[in-house]
Amino acid sequence: MSKYWSSITKSVEPYVCGEQPKDKKYIKLNTNESPYGPSPKVLNAIKSTADENLSLYPDPGCDKLREVISCYYGLGKDQIFVGNGSDEVLAMCFMAFFNKGEPIIFPDISYSFYPVYANLYNIDYKLAKLNEDFSIPVEEFLTKNGGVVLPNPNAPTGKCIETEGIKKILKSNQDKVVIIDEAYVDFGGNSVVGLIKSYPNLLVVQTLSKSRSLAGLRVGFALGQEQLIEGLNRIKNSFNSYTVNRVSNAAAIAAIEDEDYFKKCVGKIIDTRELTVSRLKKLGFKVVPSKANFIFITNPEYAAEELFRKLREKGVLVRYFNKERINNYLRVSIGSEKDMDIFIEKIEEIIK
Amino acid sequence: MSKYWSSITKSVEPYVCGEQPKDKKYIKLNTNESPYGPSPKVLNAIKSTADENLSLYPDPGCDKLREVISCYYGLGKDQIFVGNGSDEVLAMCFMAFFNKGEPIIFPDISYSFYPVYANLYNIDYKLAKLNEDFSIPVEEFLTKNGGVVLPNPNAPTGKCIETEGIKKILKSNQDKVVIIDEAYVDFGGNSVVGLIKSYPNLLVVQTLSKSRSLAGLRVGFALGQEQLIEGLNRIKNSFNSYTVNRVSNAAAIAAIEDEDYFKKCVGKIIDTRELTVSRLKKLGFKVVPSKANFIFITNPEYAAEELFRKLREKGVLVRYFNKERINNYLRVSIGSEKDMDIFIEKIEEIIK
Repeated sequence: MSKYWSSITKSVEPYVCGEQPKDKKYIKLNTNESPYGPSPKVLNAIKSTADENLSLYPDPGCDKLREVISCYYGLGKDQIFVGNGSDEVLAMCFMAFFNKGEPIIFPDISYSFYPVYANLYNIDYKLAKLNEDFSIPVEEFLTKNGGVVLPNPNAPTGKCIETEGIKKILKSNQDKVVIIDEAYVDFGGNSVVGLIKSYPNLLVVQTLSKSRSLAGLRVGFALGQEQLIEGLNRIKNSFNSYTVNRVSNAAAIAAIEDEDYFKKCVGKIIDTRELTVSRLKKLGFKVVPSKANFIFITNPEYAAEELFRKLREKGVLVRYFNKERINNYLRVSIGSEKDMDIFIEKIEEIIK
Repeated sequence: MSKYWSSITKSVEPYVCGEQPKDKKYIKLNTNESPYGPSPKVLNAIKSTADENLSLYPDPGCDKLREVISCYYGLGKDQIFVGNGSDEVLAMCFMAFFNKGEPIIFPDISYSFYPVYANLYNIDYKLAKLNEDFSIPVEEFLTKNGGVVLPNPNAPTGKCIETEGIKKILKSNQDKVVIIDEAYVDFGGNSVVGLIKSYPNLLVVQTLSKSRSLAGLRVGFALGQEQLIEGLNRIKNSFNSYTVNRVSNAAAIAAIEDEDYFKKCVGKIIDTRELTVSRLKKLGFKVVPSKANFIFITNPEYAAEELFRKLREKGVLVRYFNKERINNYLRVSIGSEKDMDIFIEKIEEIIK
């Protein structure tokens, strides 16, 4: 604590991201990255930006990128907002749409950055307790609130919310913004982008970090009707005019355009996920049904914390949350087939 | 105005950045970019990051980059904070160190993003009126305040503050943070990085956008004692864990390391500035003494707004601020020698 810190700096509880260890090479199944590199077209796009134009500011409005995203989703260009990773986009959403004194709602088990954003901006929040099977208790979101944040599929559970449930929440909150965080939707989830035209209070947030293999480049975006996008732009242009640099811009355009590569990678990850799930079940694990690029697993006979530690010793990193209700679960990102073979092999060694 | 906007979104007055026109090719002297591309070593570093590792998150702490910067400036690694452009770093500084109800001070004629940040975080501010010659009225900063922001050299004037004046301000504000924004210091200004060891309340902000020709890549940094850097990290880790992507990281490291290229570019820009100043003076212009990569000029016989407009028609973009006290001035970035030949030629055509 320092006398120089603002009251906000003193009160925040910063997010702790998944380990990026430097001590040795791990099978890295802890931060939901893609096991496949970005499209070769993305790599070429990056190389082609490495020229003298880098001395010039990027396009602050990211016009071309927004155009490509808008075509892909069948929306207008003014219905797209892009940012430096979906974390930044979410941070700006909290500032743009939520007010102090009007508690927002998000699930008790969810992306652990949401309460951090809320604390940063001094926004009160209520936690909706997930049902025992980790499904979303839709009724909890139909009470009076200052806004809603829902990841679909949820993290770290991987479980989806049915579109009908989301519609109910949207209808019940017509004066407040409902943010659906679709970071993992491309791995088999039900996107609600199609609802944007009917619901002016719906904002969908997506990222290129997972399904498009670009965690290292930081590009995320929000989709919604014009007035929500304008609100985000007002915040962004009061914070940093140029949040997406020239290289990220060009790479993101190439990533969205290369749909074949995207579909191939996503298909492989889904196949590997299903195979991994069946193997884990044979080993006595319970697996939450996942539509994400990770699975949430527990074993009635082995403590998750111990499995986490032993896997780490054996060179496999997974994510363990020491948190009520989920402290006997592990979140395991879906790696390559070979990664998952090693993961299963190590699990077998541990529980044999 | 939308019912979905937060009270902050409704009240902010977003920054308007210099034109990035797409209608035709201009001689671009309006956003203080470098006329020289980045170092060839930077371009190689970018190309070498274009590989499968881009599917992995970047190092959230930017360890290597902070190490390189700390060596360059003779500071500790924990005295360095990096961000997605110095605009982002400044935005985080306002949040990290300033409080509502404790008015901060910055000059009335200065970087026009400062009042925008203050409004974003609801921080009150007082404007210190520059002296008639655009020098900083040091006494104005010795009154009770909630913090100080001072660009040195100042923008858009290009004028420096003497180190003795900054020392007085630091001594008078020992419980509050004094931010010296050194975005343009490499073009001949007096950096106060050397004072960091003696003043725990001093934070220096710099950027790679100007003197290191990387405006398109967005890397800025702050230098200060550990507790200030820790405060910034608390805010950053409550907003976006990974603000600097893998490509920017690698490019920034190469840029700081290639000191020869940096010195060569800066030297050329200084020479071109001095030549341009002498030519403008011969044409009857008054030029504020500049230690930046731009000059602030006025001509008693020609309205600046008209010159701005006519230059634009002739394909030369400069910056005009329609703002009290400086609405008869133009800010002209220093381009290449050839750019400035054309600029002078067009000026001659207009005022002949």
